[in-house]
Amino acid sequence: MGITSISSLDQRLAQRIRKSIGEIPVAIKLGDSSELLPSSGVALVRVSIPDRALLAKLAVDPEVAFGEAYTAGTISVDGDLVRFLEIVLKSMKQSSRDTWFSRLFSRWLTRRQSNTLRGSARNIHHHYDLTTDFYRLWLDPGLVYTCAYFPQPTVTLEEAQRAKMDYVCRKVMLQPGESVVEAGCGWGALSLHMARHYGVNVKAFNISKEQIRIARERARQEGLADRVEFIEDDYRNISGRFDAFVSVGMLEHVGVENYPDLARVIHRSIGDTGRGLLHFIGRNAPRPFSPWMRKRIFPGAYAPALGQVMPALEPWNFSVLDVENLRRHYALTLEHWLSRFEGTVERVTAMFGPEFVRAWRLYLAGSLASFRVGALQLFQVVFAGSQCSGMPDTREHLYAQRALPQKEQQRWLTATS
Amino acid sequence: MGITSISSLDQRLAQRIRKSIGEIPVAIKLGDSSELLPSSGVALVRVSIPDRALLAKLAVDPEVAFGEAYTAGTISVDGDLVRFLEIVLKSMKQSSRDTWFSRLFSRWLTRRQSNTLRGSARNIHHHYDLTTDFYRLWLDPGLVYTCAYFPQPTVTLEEAQRAKMDYVCRKVMLQPGESVVEAGCGWGALSLHMARHYGVNVKAFNISKEQIRIARERARQEGLADRVEFIEDDYRNISGRFDAFVSVGMLEHVGVENYPDLARVIHRSIGDTGRGLLHFIGRNAPRPFSPWMRKRIFPGAYAPALGQVMPALEPWNFSVLDVENLRRHYALTLEHWLSRFEGTVERVTAMFGPEFVRAWRLYLAGSLASFRVGALQLFQVVFAGSQCSGMPDTREHLYAQRALPQKEQQRWLTATS
Repeated sequence: MGITSISSLDQRLAQRIRKSIGEIPVAIKLGDSSELLPSSGVALVRVSIPDRALLAKLAVDPEVAFGEAYTAGTISVDGDLVRFLEIVLKSMKQSSRDTWFSRLFSRWLTRRQSNTLRGSARNIHHHYDLTTDFYRLWLDPGLVYTCAYFPQPTVTLEEAQRAKMDYVCRKVMLQPGESVVEAGCGWGALSLHMARHYGVNVKAFNISKEQIRIARERARQEGLADRVEFIEDDYRNISGRFDAFVSVGMLEHVGVENYPDLARVIHRSIGDTGRGLLHFIGRNAPRPFSPWMRKRIFPGAYAPALGQVMPALEPWNFSVLDVENLRRHYALTLEHWLSRFEGTVERVTAMFGPEFVRAWRLYLAGSLASFRVGALQLFQVVFAGSQCSGMPDTREHLYAQRALPQKEQQRWLTATS
Repeated sequence: MGITSISSLDQRLAQRIRKSIGEIPVAIKLGDSSELLPSSGVALVRVSIPDRALLAKLAVDPEVAFGEAYTAGTISVDGDLVRFLEIVLKSMKQSSRDTWFSRLFSRWLTRRQSNTLRGSARNIHHHYDLTTDFYRLWLDPGLVYTCAYFPQPTVTLEEAQRAKMDYVCRKVMLQPGESVVEAGCGWGALSLHMARHYGVNVKAFNISKEQIRIARERARQEGLADRVEFIEDDYRNISGRFDAFVSVGMLEHVGVENYPDLARVIHRSIGDTGRGLLHFIGRNAPRPFSPWMRKRIFPGAYAPALGQVMPALEPWNFSVLDVENLRRHYALTLEHWLSRFEGTVERVTAMFGPEFVRAWRLYLAGSLASFRVGALQLFQVVFAGSQCSGMPDTREHLYAQRALPQKEQQRWLTATS
């Protein structure tokens, strides 16, 4: 059912797509027929749609249909993919209401991918238990899979990830000998960093088998196994008392309905005297997480608005001390990831095939576009128990001798004196 | 109806008070009879209650009854008043539920002091239209009646208020030639500071006649009348387009039910490209504002939790960039105010009489105690429209050459070179 001429049905379908996406400077090429140009006449990108069936799917649920067709290779984008996605996202922010089908599908996904203990295990397994060799291809050598912090935009990804870890440690004022619990520890980079550079003891939780395996291996290799314990378990099963709680990039997988549980776990862990940090992808206002991303990449994911997170802390009388929005740092981080990913596409194709490559390209490009246009935000929230002492009165210390933890400062001073 | 011996009724009333306030190390002296000691036997402070009628009132609505009796001088506190209030507040945080009467009274007050256009005018008049000569006695010379910022705890109040104003200007990145609207401008200190040191044009709104009168006088005297316009009107009537919106210490008088209106006014003022700052007294969790304070000192006041403020910004797609909690800076500010107030009590008594002095002593001491124990917080929230550019990627600039605005830096550099 290829298209050789544009029928009035095609026109109506295309109109419907434009209705939900908005007027964007993108040319649509239908089958072998000529192009449908935007009303401005100027097209920055050309999207080729092979047949009427796909056009109909796009009219019913633009986002998922596009994601699936792009992954399958049946739809193609001539021009800058990130730029195209930025244009669509900007336009959608202003004009679009979701179609009834996409709303229905989104709700169905939410129920299906619910973050119960078993649901979370399944959701996390889907993404994080891919072989670590894949992530090694395009993450920094420390395998930090969350937003980095760029003191200057020009620092390397590796430096920016180290700066982020230091920033987190400084924000919660880690002191030698203290105990820390990390919820959702990835491959263990932050836990190992905290133990090595800040002299703390860490218990780190994660339900990804593969990540925990690698993290334990690293702790042994780096001689930190006595100070960092990696535990393969859900954050809801955290037990013990700690001076500080940190969680970097886990809240996105918790689900709004479980925030009160998470806050209860935090209070159980640090009581009224501890302090904590939550680092998470968020939004300016509540909105469902991309259904295509949830279907293919991050089952069960959700990016909350601050107004959805704050109330969870209230029953425990936690004081919010500091909130910082690092949105543009995530755009920079994703630029690094996407370009490193593109540089290793042949090897990824050999590992997982071309569909996987296209899905992950769309995921990385879509995330980059989202942070660039502000469809997604990145929040770091520092909070403290009502009896917490020892947090400084100003934030100046975060920027003095920036990003050099105490030990390295001493090493540096010794080396230069 | 004085008390010469402690009856079982007295005992029961005292028990009831302890039930709502909690077990505190305070001795209660009833009339001429002996003292009721706390169960620990150790009392840090002694409160003298002259008669059974007052004891009954305290049992029904401890806070308002105490405030009214302290103001009238019928109740007295031997020992450190601030320390006493800290003890009570800490104890109440843990144990107390309000009595049914105090809940009823609080709700009645909320309705009676509702912040409609007329209600706000009445509420603001009550506090801020007291003669400025009174505030001159104990505020800093710039007449800044909000939380200061202490780069070091030892700086003077005047320095800390200037540092706060610079901090606000830097947080919203004011540039010469830009336009700013200030909602709730007090006696004009911040508006004048912004115009003088950051080269911006300001429209400043306030519904206190007395404050606007003084502010206009200052603008003329300081030669800034062409760049700062003081307007006697409600924030709801702000019109015009601006690069930045600032409001320092007004949100407390807006009322939760009007936050959506305030956010609409902000978006009307700065659109999608501007940025803004809200500086306000808040709480860790929602709770009615002290009924006694509302009755005597701040009619219509409310200190919100962050979770109550954030949702108001959502419909306008504002991005929250930075939230800072300056609670301990307000405790320091209040230490200065209270000690300056005590130093000038004779003159205040001559102006308003001893009841006024006691009411204001209790208000200042109670506020200081509240910030010390964390019953109140102070939040600065920086946000930006979805198309705002020019906000920096890191907060480092806030701490580089601290608290020196550009012009003064140049002056300083010229003077020292």
